[in-house]
Amino acid sequence: MPHLAPAVLVTGAAGFIGSHLVRAILDDERYQDFQIIAFDDLSGGFKENIPSHERVVFVQGDISNANDVAELYSKWPVRYVFHLAAYAAEGLSHFIRRFNYQNNLIGSVNLINESVKAGVQYFVFTSSIAVYGKGQVPMTEATVPHPEDPYGIGKLAVELDLKSAADMFGLKSTVFRPHNVYGEYQNIGDRYRNVVGIFMNRMMQGLPLPIFGDGSQQRAFTYVADIIRPMLSAPFVQEAEGEAFNIGASVPVSVRELVDVVASEFGGKPEIQFLAARNEVHLAWSDHSKADRVFGASTETPLAVGIRQMARWAKQVGYRKSAAFENIEIEQGLPLSWRSPNND
Amino acid sequence: MPHLAPAVLVTGAAGFIGSHLVRAILDDERYQDFQIIAFDDLSGGFKENIPSHERVVFVQGDISNANDVAELYSKWPVRYVFHLAAYAAEGLSHFIRRFNYQNNLIGSVNLINESVKAGVQYFVFTSSIAVYGKGQVPMTEATVPHPEDPYGIGKLAVELDLKSAADMFGLKSTVFRPHNVYGEYQNIGDRYRNVVGIFMNRMMQGLPLPIFGDGSQQRAFTYVADIIRPMLSAPFVQEAEGEAFNIGASVPVSVRELVDVVASEFGGKPEIQFLAARNEVHLAWSDHSKADRVFGASTETPLAVGIRQMARWAKQVGYRKSAAFENIEIEQGLPLSWRSPNND
Ligand SMILES: NC(=O)c1ccc[n+]([C@@H]2O[C@H](COP(=O)([O-])OP(=O)(O)OC[C@H]3O[C@@H](n4cnc5c(N)ncnc54)[C@H](O)[C@@H]3O)[C@@H](O)[C@H]2O)c1
Ligand SMILES: NC(=O)c1ccc[n+]([C@@H]2O[C@H](COP(=O)([O-])OP(=O)(O)OC[C@H]3O[C@@H](n4cnc5c(N)ncnc54)[C@H](O)[C@@H]3O)[C@@H](O)[C@H]2O)c1
Repeated sequence: MPHLAPAVLVTGAAGFIGSHLVRAILDDERYQDFQIIAFDDLSGGFKENIPSHERVVFVQGDISNANDVAELYSKWPVRYVFHLAAYAAEGLSHFIRRFNYQNNLIGSVNLINESVKAGVQYFVFTSSIAVYGKGQVPMTEATVPHPEDPYGIGKLAVELDLKSAADMFGLKSTVFRPHNVYGEYQNIGDRYRNVVGIFMNRMMQGLPLPIFGDGSQQRAFTYVADIIRPMLSAPFVQEAEGEAFNIGASVPVSVRELVDVVASEFGGKPEIQFLAARNEVHLAWSDHSKADRVFGASTETPLAVGIRQMARWAKQVGYRKSAAFENIEIEQGLPLSWRSPNND
Repeated sequence: MPHLAPAVLVTGAAGFIGSHLVRAILDDERYQDFQIIAFDDLSGGFKENIPSHERVVFVQGDISNANDVAELYSKWPVRYVFHLAAYAAEGLSHFIRRFNYQNNLIGSVNLINESVKAGVQYFVFTSSIAVYGKGQVPMTEATVPHPEDPYGIGKLAVELDLKSAADMFGLKSTVFRPHNVYGEYQNIGDRYRNVVGIFMNRMMQGLPLPIFGDGSQQRAFTYVADIIRPMLSAPFVQEAEGEAFNIGASVPVSVRELVDVVASEFGGKPEIQFLAARNEVHLAWSDHSKADRVFGASTETPLAVGIRQMARWAKQVGYRKSAAFENIEIEQGLPLSWRSPNND
């Protein structure tokens, strides 16, 4: 019975970063003897993103459903957990507070509970630089977290819960705080997040590119391949235990500049649709020297190169229709462009 | 239709602090024109704790149930919210992580959602010094919060969510962080929390008093009457808006010393049952100069006086049978004395 081999659980495996992680685990010597359980409810991911391989088993389920999670752990001898499942539309989280905590925090706590009970060896959690909130840039891990939206608050709560579970039950873990990741397999049909994907999806349809405010807000866009290695290494690197690490690119770029880089891959000069500024952190980039010190210097794919690779993939799969989030809890202050069910 | 008068909502109103607050609101000039909606699911409180009065309406419901909360706000024009409903057994929260966040965080978020939508004027939240975790004492509001158990993590998440809701939607709020409150109407039948109540309940049954560790852990036990005034004033004090305040007594007392104070009210020399130390903060007391500055110096009822008043009440109502929490999520490491369904 092959499914009784020890297992690596990847939650959110049908998603963007998760599916890259599954591929990387398959190729990694250290995980050769493990089954990979690709767990996802397909709410935001695609089954096709998960590689077909005899060692990969797709299990559909919802982390926020305690029964789904208990069943998962009862069927598979889970040793390592890479927990990526989340609804990650940060800006939208103000308007879907309950769903945000239910999905991202309660979901994570279900996994922590079962991981404690199963004696899991290591738990790797994908948090976000959203835990820092506004404040000085570059953000370092010594910056006191002060998240300013429910998405960041939920991530911080999971980080703290993992620390508490380590003290109380000995559950070992590492937290990663990536930022602004882009690349192949990203859901470019998500209208609420990831400006790179939104730009590509709209360029392919000849639609104007929406920008909140004047586009001077800066982000260090990170090519997905550059963050995978430290995540896979965490369980094997002593100094990583119980620590949090910023990971991602170090070169901040304004959203206005990003337009040009994306446009150059798709040809034509895009029309820009300037929208009212929204409540978001203006400057967000982070220092990665801690991760470099513990995991070795990371590769940093230049933006133009990463965008080219993603654009090639995007053209292959074509544009995606963007669905509206159905259960908005607070309508007040919701950006206009997020209101209409048919805005693109 | 009297129920259409503007309303003050008190959640957890059938509980210990909540019922004191309802009484104080009834007596307070500033709230004379308001109905008081006493909301509680009676999971830990008692309907009898709520005073009978034409201005007080008891509504039974569960804050963690979004429909209950939506119905509440649709029926009553809520202007002020005093949110106290919570399951507050801090030590137990390690073992009931999911329930803790579901009840205390999701429940609070349901109230925040509806308060934003209803344009509530002011939201007063009862947090806890559990948000600080270990660290230097006395804790001041400038101490960086680092909660170490799910109870404290959930409280911090609500504090942060309220800050976010203030920035985003203009919901005004004040956070109070009381500690170790005791007094009349406390649930002395709760085996998981409030050493004062546990001691009284067991003395009345002639049972030994359980102490985790050697009893040298210190707390500043706070008589309930001493914390009510600042809470009621918060909506009317400009400097309180958006701020957090430690409130409570300032004299730390060891649990071992507490035994003597309680015993002197019940007569006899109690037997002490020393239990294995549990994972708890050893020294917890806090600085209240910020609250004193903003709300005026608080009264501080001496421990012996407060204990005498509570003991008198406890003798009137008699001891209560202590029920075990039914849905323990993690058994590992659960203190032995919390395991048995019939340990007293
Ligand atoms: N992409 C970024 O820039 C970025 C930055 C920081 C952190 N993160 C974090 O990395 C993780 C992965 O992000 P991503 O960009 O790949 O997002 P994604 O949406 O592509 O992947 C998330 C996956 O989780 C699944 N999922 C969501 N809720 C679930 C639930 N309740 N049960 C089971 N599966 C569920 C979705 O179906 C999706 O496949 C998330 O935790 C996100 O918060 C991402
Ligand atoms: N007593 C203390 O020393 C202390 C210290 C710091 C903070 N607090 C906080 O003060 C508040 C009141 O504490 P208390 O000591 O009066 O506790 P309590 O248990 O006497 O009161 C809490 C009340 O909330 C109700 N409740 C719980 N979950 C509910 C839900 N889902 N829906 C509706 N009602 C629900 C209970 O039935 C109970 O009546 C809590 O938020 C607690 O965390 C208390």
